[in-house]
Amino acid sequence: MDFASELKRHVARVERGLDQFVPRANTRPARLHTAMRYSLEAGGKRLRPVLVLATTELFSGSDDAALPAGKADALAAAVAIECLHTYSLIHDDLPCMDNDDLRRGRATAHKQFDEATALLAGDALLTHAFALLAENYAAQPQLATALVRALADAAGSRRLIGGQMEDLLAEKKADATADELEFIHLNKTAAMIEAALVMGGLIGGAKEGDIATLRRAGRHLGLAFQIIDDILDATADTATLGKTAGKDAKADKTTFVKLHGVDAARSIAHENSAQAKSAMKNLEGETVFLESLIDTMAARIS
Amino acid sequence: MDFASELKRHVARVERGLDQFVPRANTRPARLHTAMRYSLEAGGKRLRPVLVLATTELFSGSDDAALPAGKADALAAAVAIECLHTYSLIHDDLPCMDNDDLRRGRATAHKQFDEATALLAGDALLTHAFALLAENYAAQPQLATALVRALADAAGSRRLIGGQMEDLLAEKKADATADELEFIHLNKTAAMIEAALVMGGLIGGAKEGDIATLRRAGRHLGLAFQIIDDILDATADTATLGKTAGKDAKADKTTFVKLHGVDAARSIAHENSAQAKSAMKNLEGETVFLESLIDTMAARIS
Repeated sequence: MDFASELKRHVARVERGLDQFVPRANTRPARLHTAMRYSLEAGGKRLRPVLVLATTELFSGSDDAALPAGKADALAAAVAIECLHTYSLIHDDLPCMDNDDLRRGRATAHKQFDEATALLAGDALLTHAFALLAENYAAQPQLATALVRALADAAGSRRLIGGQMEDLLAEKKADATADELEFIHLNKTAAMIEAALVMGGLIGGAKEGDIATLRRAGRHLGLAFQIIDDILDATADTATLGKTAGKDAKADKTTFVKLHGVDAARSIAHENSAQAKSAMKNLEGETVFLESLIDTMAARIS
Repeated sequence: MDFASELKRHVARVERGLDQFVPRANTRPARLHTAMRYSLEAGGKRLRPVLVLATTELFSGSDDAALPAGKADALAAAVAIECLHTYSLIHDDLPCMDNDDLRRGRATAHKQFDEATALLAGDALLTHAFALLAENYAAQPQLATALVRALADAAGSRRLIGGQMEDLLAEKKADATADELEFIHLNKTAAMIEAALVMGGLIGGAKEGDIATLRRAGRHLGLAFQIIDDILDATADTATLGKTAGKDAKADKTTFVKLHGVDAARSIAHENSAQAKSAMKNLEGETVFLESLIDTMAARIS
């Protein structure tokens, strides 16, 4: 397996899927659909949808060219999770939240349009994620229901949104605890990474035990990913990141870097990457792509 | 049938359901869950969830005390639609939208808490609506999938959110057209009323033809409801409404009242009420409660 070309194949499918599964920009009202596509098309790593596609293939053992009979295509679910992730970024960037002007190297939605349009575009992307699942997996209603449940739980008030709420509350005090930081990272970041792996497993027909393993791998991968993000915020520049660097230190925000220092944060990240890979080794199927993805991510802070 | 006591029975079930199906206020993070409950518990007519419950009973022919085997309980879906409706009010009241301080006689969420908390509480209620459907109807996955699809379509970028977007755009110009106004009302208001009837029909096991009839009835009921709201905004006072009165005229907003005058608006509202009732007469089952509900609504502007 050539990792770079596999990654490219998955990302290309995601980009095609985003175009296919999201209403045209000129759909009425055009301003809303233009804003939805503006934010979706800003790029980014497409990590979550790629995880959905790669995990599905791990179990169904096929790519889109040769889908076994009775197996569902993962692309609509991959697009759904990217819609949901993009909504969370749009709302997170709003003036009442992080008030950020730059995202993925471009103006954030509320700078490019206005606050109301950004708010509604976020709401619409969140809603569209569930519409996509219910519509595209309707022929396998048990799968559709399980996908909606996995995504809604991961994105809900006890996980993604709960993590964002605690993050905001923690910013207001300079001394967030390690417990608060763990809650934030587990929910704000790891929840959606877990959901990506679980949704891929569900579509690929993974057994219950494998779903639990995917959840554990996603938890470690998500934590590693967030700590790496914290380290890069502290050590890289804005041009490299495509988003404002040094934000955390400027805001005196509690991060793994602030709590433990860069070196210790780096080893916690590597430890979580290793645990994610180790969990994946328990899965049947060819996990070399997913393991390489983790290695590539970890190499950014090596 | 005694309409008032039937209505009271349905509303009481909805209030119990809201308490049962929404996380406790002290669930971590407590500020978020407190805000979600604050907005849900502000009261209101509970029109949409009552429509879900009443429409389900129309077809299943039972109340919660005697649910026939294999029939699903409508309460979780009723709560889901109220969560979705409440999210739309919270976001609509935000400073970047209508910037309203008063809702259902109390401080709006962003006044009571802050903008970020209100934003996240809205996001969480929207997400929770889908979680409730996927979780509580999982034993009937085909029903669960159909419910998610009906709700997500009605709440999506082409309907509820699309209507809010066009409403905002129309506010910026003093001369919105009748076409724009119809788009706004059909989507901002009627979509969720339609969804309430359709979801009730799906849970009650209505046949496809009846679902189409419910959709048509909901469209007329929704239009009547919105026009009545416009008339009351122009003719009633803030204390009576429990929300700021006279807002539309103050903002020189295009409404049915502004376009056609109060008298013509009143007759368009009554016409739509009559069409909703007439559609309902085509349904099998006892529609007297739903017809009385429409009459009671229309009587507010008689």
